[in-house]
Amino acid sequence: MPQGFSAFITNLGIRDTTDDFVFIKSSVPCVADGVFTQSLFAGPSVTISRNHLKDSQAQGIVVISKNANVANGSVGIADAQEVLQLVATETGIAAHNIVIASTGVIGRRYPIEKIRAGLLGLGKNLTPADFHAAARGIMTTDTVPKLATRQIGNAKLVGIAKGVGMIEPNMATLLTFFFTDAAISANSLRSIFRSTIDKTFNCLSVDTDTSTSDSAVILANGIAGEVSEADFASALQEVAQELVLKIAKDAEGATKIIEVTVDSAINYAQAKTVAKAIVNSPLVKTAVYGADPNWGRVAMAIGKCENEQQINPEIVVIRFDNVKVYPNSLTDENLEQLRQIMSKDQVNIHVSLNIGEASATVWGCDLSEGYIEINGKYST
Amino acid sequence: MPQGFSAFITNLGIRDTTDDFVFIKSSVPCVADGVFTQSLFAGPSVTISRNHLKDSQAQGIVVISKNANVANGSVGIADAQEVLQLVATETGIAAHNIVIASTGVIGRRYPIEKIRAGLLGLGKNLTPADFHAAARGIMTTDTVPKLATRQIGNAKLVGIAKGVGMIEPNMATLLTFFFTDAAISANSLRSIFRSTIDKTFNCLSVDTDTSTSDSAVILANGIAGEVSEADFASALQEVAQELVLKIAKDAEGATKIIEVTVDSAINYAQAKTVAKAIVNSPLVKTAVYGADPNWGRVAMAIGKCENEQQINPEIVVIRFDNVKVYPNSLTDENLEQLRQIMSKDQVNIHVSLNIGEASATVWGCDLSEGYIEINGKYST
Repeated sequence: MPQGFSAFITNLGIRDTTDDFVFIKSSVPCVADGVFTQSLFAGPSVTISRNHLKDSQAQGIVVISKNANVANGSVGIADAQEVLQLVATETGIAAHNIVIASTGVIGRRYPIEKIRAGLLGLGKNLTPADFHAAARGIMTTDTVPKLATRQIGNAKLVGIAKGVGMIEPNMATLLTFFFTDAAISANSLRSIFRSTIDKTFNCLSVDTDTSTSDSAVILANGIAGEVSEADFASALQEVAQELVLKIAKDAEGATKIIEVTVDSAINYAQAKTVAKAIVNSPLVKTAVYGADPNWGRVAMAIGKCENEQQINPEIVVIRFDNVKVYPNSLTDENLEQLRQIMSKDQVNIHVSLNIGEASATVWGCDLSEGYIEINGKYST
Repeated sequence: MPQGFSAFITNLGIRDTTDDFVFIKSSVPCVADGVFTQSLFAGPSVTISRNHLKDSQAQGIVVISKNANVANGSVGIADAQEVLQLVATETGIAAHNIVIASTGVIGRRYPIEKIRAGLLGLGKNLTPADFHAAARGIMTTDTVPKLATRQIGNAKLVGIAKGVGMIEPNMATLLTFFFTDAAISANSLRSIFRSTIDKTFNCLSVDTDTSTSDSAVILANGIAGEVSEADFASALQEVAQELVLKIAKDAEGATKIIEVTVDSAINYAQAKTVAKAIVNSPLVKTAVYGADPNWGRVAMAIGKCENEQQINPEIVVIRFDNVKVYPNSLTDENLEQLRQIMSKDQVNIHVSLNIGEASATVWGCDLSEGYIEINGKYST
C-alpha cells in the first residue's frame, strides 16, 4: 500500500450499525485532482469539494455513506461545512485542504448531533490507513468492497470505489478514490486522471440514472519519489478498469457483466453513443439476464441512435463473442451457440459500423428481479 | 362504429394459435396519414408504408403480429411486398393504396408459405369490421385489447393500439390505427393527426426502447359527411389519450400508471425533457412500484438534464398529487401521505421549474419483476 496515509473509519449511526464515516489523511500535502457529477442537483459535498480542489492540493478526504446530503437547501450546506470544520480542528489540516463526499438517500438531513459526538477525538485516533476497511466504509447497497492496487516503480497506487445503482457517470463517477505515494506534477496528474476516468468510469452504466453525488478524487503525496509518467498512466488505467468491472459485477441485481465494443465508427463519440444505447437498453439487459438469444434487440438499440444518420444498417455487423448474428439469418446451431454465450458471466457484444476508424468499449450489467427488489424499498 | 369498413382477421400460424393477421378495408378510397418510427433499423413495413402514404390516400391496412419482419435484409423487403401483392390481388385494391405494419420478434423471417396459404380467398371472406377483434389480432405481449371511440357529429371515430414494451415512441408510436367515416381534407387531417400524436403517443414511455416498427395511421373514408374540424380534433385527442393510458396500464409488468407534469418551463421542449427524464428513471419507476416515498429520486432525475442549465434547483418545486416534497424537509405525516399517494393505481408527479410559461405532461409506468420475467425469455 502507498506510504504516508492514515485513517479514521467508524460507525456514526447515520443509518445502521455498519461503518459510515471514513477519513483518510496524508502525512504531507498532496497533489490532487477530482472530477464530479454534472447533475443540476449536485449536493454540497460536490460543490464544496470542486472548490477545494481548484488549487490541485489536498491532504485529506472525508466520506459519509448512507446519506447523500443532497436537496437539503442551506441547512445541508451548513452541515457539510460543519463536518469539515470538525475534522479540520481535530487534525490541524485547513478545511480547504479537505475533500468531502457523501452517498446514500437524497433529501434527508445528516444526524448532525451524532456526527459531532462521533468525531470528538478523531485526531488522536488515526491509525495507518486500512484501505480495505475504507472500501467497506464507503459502501451503501454494495455487497462487496471494491479495491485495486498496482506498483509503479517504487511507488504504489490504490483505488477504492463504491456504487451499484444510480450509475450513469458523466465526467465523473459514483464515489471512487485513488491514493498514491508517487511524485507527479499537478498538470500531469490532471491530464492523466481525467483521460483515464473518461475511458473507464464514464464508460460504465448500471441504470442510466446519473447520481447527484458522483465524485472521483486522486491524492498523490510524493513520498516514494518520481515515477515514469507512462507507467503511472498505465497503472491508473488498470486500477480504474479493475474497479469498473468490480462495480459492474456487483451492480444492483446484476448476474452478468455486459461489455459492448463498437468499432469502425466515424469518431469516438459516435462509437460511444451506439455502445451506450446497447448497454443501457432494458430489453438487451433482460435478454442477457434470461440468456434469451434475442439478438434483434441489439439492432433495435442501434436503431435508436437517430442522430447518427451516417450509420447504414445494411453494412452493420453484429457479433456476440465470435458468433455473427447480423446480417444473415441464424441457423439453429448458431442460436444454440448464442444461448451458450449469453449464459456466461460476461457477455461480449461487438458491433462494427464499417464507416470509420474509431472505437469505444463500455460496460454494464443485466437487469434482473434483484434490481426491482432492492430499489422498490430502498429509502425505508 | 364508423361506416364502410370491412375486415379479415385470422390466425396464420406466425407464432402461436392466436389471431396474427388483420386486414381492414374501406369500401371507398380514404384520405389518410401516417407517422412512423425514426429508428435507423426501421423494417420494410415502415419504409413501404411511409412511401404508400405520400399521396395521403389509402384504402386498406394489413397488420401482421408476432413477427416484426425487421433486420431480414432484401428477403424481408420481398416478403412484405409479396404480402401486399397477395392482398391486392384478392381485393382489387392497388398495392400502393394498402398500408402494412408488423410487430413482434426482430430478425426472423415470416413463415411465408403459411401466409400464402392463409390469404387465399381473403377477398371473399371480408365481413363488416369487428374493431374489437382487430384490436385483439394486433396484440403481441399485450394482455388486453386497446380500443377507444368517439362520436363527431354524425361520424364515428375508432382507434386501436397495441404495445406494452420497447416503447419510447419518437414522432410515431408502437402500432395504432384510427378509422373514421368523417369527411376531412388531407391537409387538415395531416395537421390534426400529427399534432395529436405528438402530444399523446410521443409523450408515452414504457422502457426507453424505441421500436423499429412504430406506426400510427389514420383512415378517413368520408361516408358520414363533413364534421367540425374542432370537434374532430378534440375527439381524436380524446381517443388517442385514452389509448395511451390503456397502453401505460397494460405495459409489461406494470402495476401503476405514472403521470408526470412539468410546468413553468422556458419552453415545451424543456418541459418534456425534464418530464421524460423523470418518467424514464428506473429508480423513480421502482420506487413507485414499491410505494417507497423516496422522492429524492425525482430530484436526481431532474438533475440528469444537464443541458437545461437555466433550471435552478433552489426554486424548483416537486409535488406528488398535492403534497409538496421539495423544498423543505418532510414531516413523518407527509411521508405517510406520500406513501399512500404512491400506493394508488395512478401516481401523479408535478414539477414546477418556475422559470417560464410552458408545460408538458407525459405518461409511463412502474418497473416490476414482471417486466424482467416477460423480457428475459421473449424470443423463445
